[in-house]
Amino acid sequence: MYKLLKIEGRAKRGEFHTPHGIIQTPVFMNVATVAAIKGALSSMDLKDVKCQVALSNTYHLHLRPGDQVIHKLGGLHKFMVWDRPILTDSGGFQVFSLTSLRTIKEEGVYFSSHIDGRKIFMGPEESIQIQSNLGSTIAMAFDECPPYPCDKAYMTASVSRTTRWLKRCQAELRRLNQLDTTVNKNQMLFGINQGGVYKDIRIEHAKEISELNLDGYAIGGLAVGESHEQMYYILEETVPYLPQDKPTYLMGVGTPENILESVERGVDFFDCVLPARNGRHGHVYTNKGKLNLFNAKYELDSSPIDETCTCPTCRNYSKAYIRHLLKAKEMLGMRLCVLHNLYFFNNMMEEIRQALDNNNFAHYKKLKLEGFQEKEEESE
Amino acid sequence: MYKLLKIEGRAKRGEFHTPHGIIQTPVFMNVATVAAIKGALSSMDLKDVKCQVALSNTYHLHLRPGDQVIHKLGGLHKFMVWDRPILTDSGGFQVFSLTSLRTIKEEGVYFSSHIDGRKIFMGPEESIQIQSNLGSTIAMAFDECPPYPCDKAYMTASVSRTTRWLKRCQAELRRLNQLDTTVNKNQMLFGINQGGVYKDIRIEHAKEISELNLDGYAIGGLAVGESHEQMYYILEETVPYLPQDKPTYLMGVGTPENILESVERGVDFFDCVLPARNGRHGHVYTNKGKLNLFNAKYELDSSPIDETCTCPTCRNYSKAYIRHLLKAKEMLGMRLCVLHNLYFFNNMMEEIRQALDNNNFAHYKKLKLEGFQEKEEESE
Repeated sequence: MYKLLKIEGRAKRGEFHTPHGIIQTPVFMNVATVAAIKGALSSMDLKDVKCQVALSNTYHLHLRPGDQVIHKLGGLHKFMVWDRPILTDSGGFQVFSLTSLRTIKEEGVYFSSHIDGRKIFMGPEESIQIQSNLGSTIAMAFDECPPYPCDKAYMTASVSRTTRWLKRCQAELRRLNQLDTTVNKNQMLFGINQGGVYKDIRIEHAKEISELNLDGYAIGGLAVGESHEQMYYILEETVPYLPQDKPTYLMGVGTPENILESVERGVDFFDCVLPARNGRHGHVYTNKGKLNLFNAKYELDSSPIDETCTCPTCRNYSKAYIRHLLKAKEMLGMRLCVLHNLYFFNNMMEEIRQALDNNNFAHYKKLKLEGFQEKEEESE
Repeated sequence: MYKLLKIEGRAKRGEFHTPHGIIQTPVFMNVATVAAIKGALSSMDLKDVKCQVALSNTYHLHLRPGDQVIHKLGGLHKFMVWDRPILTDSGGFQVFSLTSLRTIKEEGVYFSSHIDGRKIFMGPEESIQIQSNLGSTIAMAFDECPPYPCDKAYMTASVSRTTRWLKRCQAELRRLNQLDTTVNKNQMLFGINQGGVYKDIRIEHAKEISELNLDGYAIGGLAVGESHEQMYYILEETVPYLPQDKPTYLMGVGTPENILESVERGVDFFDCVLPARNGRHGHVYTNKGKLNLFNAKYELDSSPIDETCTCPTCRNYSKAYIRHLLKAKEMLGMRLCVLHNLYFFNNMMEEIRQALDNNNFAHYKKLKLEGFQEKEEESE
């Protein structure tokens, strides 16, 4: 159940009630691909960096250790020891981006595993069955994520099939939620709006799926190559046609700037691998822009990454120490950067919520964006 | 200052007072090679796994980030944020094991860096200067660690030079401890007994260095290829000639069994990379022997590594989850295993101290060794 607490322009401040607790929105979900955050972070660490929702990947977990294994072990929450909400993606994105020898049919997708090449079939029912085995809080509908660019005829046919798949997902989840063997009998389902940068396809699709009374609605197929301006334009045109009284989730986005701009346009769920990936490469976020800790100027810098930050890393360690660890290829260096970056994102979402609570989002956003301009470092 | 609290046979229970706090002995020091434990463990984690003393490597830190850098940043304690004792080795072991094109002269050793091949000279004064720059609690004397096997004539000459080097180390540390720029003006010095498996050389050397009134005495050059029996025999013959009222440190040892046997023979300081290295390979210690978590039989095992263990890993995670992480090559898998293994060692040392406090060491040791026999798994 989604409760809309405040609105400022189109920006939403909400609460999403789930079987695993309440999610305060806008929220940034932290990507635990194979039931762990890359960078040696555990579920205990996720609590330390203020994570509300962990996001895990259906495709990866289906291949390893196998969703049947996780089901036998009592589901993903128990497996990774995380009692807060988990969202699982549908596997669709990975099937379309990681695998080879793909064939898309009405029933689903035939492809080869990126690990051992074995032939796999995944359709809407299979995706939902896997997600049901995992027992995540929120399952995502199985969709096609078309490439960018993509011609309009293909996009129209693809989106139309995605709608048919969505209905099959909904039916399958209803069936599975009634089985005795199901780990989470209250599993929720988010549908996904597609249409690339074609405004009319997006809007038509948004209207169509909004009628299905799903638990939430995602916007997929953005941040795949189009410009930021195109993405913001599509959000402006599409979000008004999605239910305001449901979560609005922009998949795979993005930078702090992207998040601020998208919140303004009515989005309140986000996820992205960027903060963890950047952290593993020594790129860290601050309120004054991104730093590259490999930079020689930090050799003798005894100050934390961000003086104003209260993350586990900044409370303890200096830039000089972290730089040394990164250069010596010590795993701890990556871990400390990832801890900081996830905290930075989760903390920014908290600030956004507070700003919305105080009807102050526009002002907050302006100041924040100005700060980010101060410095932005490239690799050495 | 070393306080001998209890003796059971030759086993010592002591307290070593240092400028960075009291070390309860017997103690196992945890190896933070480049100012971090391999396996993404921070100094905060070291406290969680009951570590009393961190051991860092002079040679590695001299090359990267450079001891001058650490000196400018206020010393190693501040750099790695660790307020408990740190022992630094002399660099000798790495110079003799990692480098190429070595030439040993009376003044010291000429060698090439294992990182970039540049020519470096290190003698007793240089080693102590580096350790003084690092500001560790305990500096180790610069010695030659002769290969195994080694002929007696070479060993005699080498040990004799090691004694001369030791005296130069002592003089240099006295000088440096009086300088205004020195980070830790109360830096302590341990001498190192050498002699390979030649009992008479060991004893003669032990007698000689015991007269120098050093802060502690180490036994080096064991666990380098000789059998366990030879090692235990050398301990039995040599330890009685080292001061009982000073720390007795067996360098680079070893397995839990080695530690129990060596405590019985009068050793009360240990260090070894084994628990961290084994952890990174999924080999974990339990009171019933070592487990290999890659083993297929743990796929559905929802129990912790050791039911009786209260480490951060066992309090939270299952063997099935850790096995999955290891197989998926997630850094978190290594981290959880290393956390467990270090805790296991540090906790065993605590048990050993309690047993000694209760005059119960012999009995404790017997039970512990019997437990270890129960299972010992090889790699798949």
